[in-house]
Amino acid sequence: MTENLKTILSSQTKTVEIHRDLPTVIIGERINPTGRKAVLEALRAGSFDIVRQDALTQVAAGATVLDVNAGVPGADEPALLTQVMAEVMAVTDVPLSIDTADPRALAAALAVYQGKALVNSVNGEERKLESVLPLVKEFGAAVIALCLDDSGIPETPEQRLKVAAKMIERAARLGIPIEDLVIDPLALTMGAESSAGRVALDTIALVVKEFGSNITMGASNISFGMPDRKYINATFMAMAIHAGMTCPITNPLVPEVSIAISAADLSMGRDDYGMTWIRAYRKRQAAAAS
Amino acid sequence: MTENLKTILSSQTKTVEIHRDLPTVIIGERINPTGRKAVLEALRAGSFDIVRQDALTQVAAGATVLDVNAGVPGADEPALLTQVMAEVMAVTDVPLSIDTADPRALAAALAVYQGKALVNSVNGEERKLESVLPLVKEFGAAVIALCLDDSGIPETPEQRLKVAAKMIERAARLGIPIEDLVIDPLALTMGAESSAGRVALDTIALVVKEFGSNITMGASNISFGMPDRKYINATFMAMAIHAGMTCPITNPLVPEVSIAISAADLSMGRDDYGMTWIRAYRKRQAAAAS
Repeated sequence: MTENLKTILSSQTKTVEIHRDLPTVIIGERINPTGRKAVLEALRAGSFDIVRQDALTQVAAGATVLDVNAGVPGADEPALLTQVMAEVMAVTDVPLSIDTADPRALAAALAVYQGKALVNSVNGEERKLESVLPLVKEFGAAVIALCLDDSGIPETPEQRLKVAAKMIERAARLGIPIEDLVIDPLALTMGAESSAGRVALDTIALVVKEFGSNITMGASNISFGMPDRKYINATFMAMAIHAGMTCPITNPLVPEVSIAISAADLSMGRDDYGMTWIRAYRKRQAAAAS
Repeated sequence: MTENLKTILSSQTKTVEIHRDLPTVIIGERINPTGRKAVLEALRAGSFDIVRQDALTQVAAGATVLDVNAGVPGADEPALLTQVMAEVMAVTDVPLSIDTADPRALAAALAVYQGKALVNSVNGEERKLESVLPLVKEFGAAVIALCLDDSGIPETPEQRLKVAAKMIERAARLGIPIEDLVIDPLALTMGAESSAGRVALDTIALVVKEFGSNITMGASNISFGMPDRKYINATFMAMAIHAGMTCPITNPLVPEVSIAISAADLSMGRDDYGMTWIRAYRKRQAAAAS
């Protein structure tokens, strides 16, 4: 049995531990203009109310890490990203996941961040490995590592495991410890390829067996094009947690998904006497009554 | 990789195959007076309307096997059980799971059943092995095998696997093939022991890895004493399917649980193009509109 690794993230005042014996860590996904027109327009207009609001509501709903993306086409991303981060840090104290495809924005964000951030993301492409990993090393961050490379997204779990192994090896060469890589198996759309969910679940199990790594996933793509997506996403979330996922990137404001995560932690024996489950139930009751 | 076994059940006119590559088989649990006062009183009064109704509604909700229990204290169980089975077979054509602790009732039921029944259940107790397995062999039935023995319910997955191995071996000695044993890992109450869910899930994974057996479970005990039980049961169901459960005994009329089973099959790549998911969605829409 491979030992389960512990990934530590921190803000200036708060530390979050990610480990397979601990409750699932929810990385809140909502601070992202991609596909959210209101956020896009607010950021374009230099208004950050919605960002602060999204930070507060996600933390209240159980997110213990917040993903921050400021990818507004045409904007000065290094400046905008650090501004958005400052707004989030002004109202919450959770560690951040810095979500950008722009190495300059990443460098600027890591330079102002106080604590150990999660970088979102690197993958197995040479260009990415060379631009992202040195920054991860320089700033002592952790990093999400997507199972794709210059040949694209591999079809089989075994091939995706190989990409994970390559990223871990390349990080190690720079002195980045294996526990600072959080592997993303990639969940594609089942509507396009019926095996997409199965391949993601099997990749999680393989990576966990081989490396004991922590696992993240942006799992809502899986249900694209299907009706009643929230039920698929909730069920898939529970199955991925059983397979070994420890820190999904998700929207904690979707009750079906949040409930499935709590119930999955309970079922995995990570919620003694169901204390967290019962607390969440009372919160739902109070919210329904108000 | 151990080969996944195929268990075949049949009625006079219908065959059901249970296999890990096929959609989950739902064994409807409702025809049972235990804990259902209306059923108990109806059976006492010799009225079978509720039994026929339960048979029809469960099959309409997706059950492809029906569990039949006629355990009414003080009643002539052999006569009552065969009567209840006749009522069910008069209105549906699915295979039956014959659920009795009384060997005489079991013998009587198997004698009148036409097809390959599922016997519910044997366990690792000497007394049970000796009374149930010969009947299973004589009538060519399949049997649910509970992971407990004369020492009680083992605490660890490894110990439960040993009980499964013992039951498989004892059955083999009588000429009952391994694929005719459907293993039940036993799901105890998490409110009493926080690890109960985890132990059941890990037992499933061990048994599947070792024997490739089909797995059943009466999974609703798991949430006893907790609030919002249906969400726990639905989530646990999905995780158990991921672990390898193939034929849960459950109430298909609980929408949360039925939806979780469909979504789990979709996520496991057992529902091409989501056709079954989409059909179930349309049925829910139609029901909500009527």
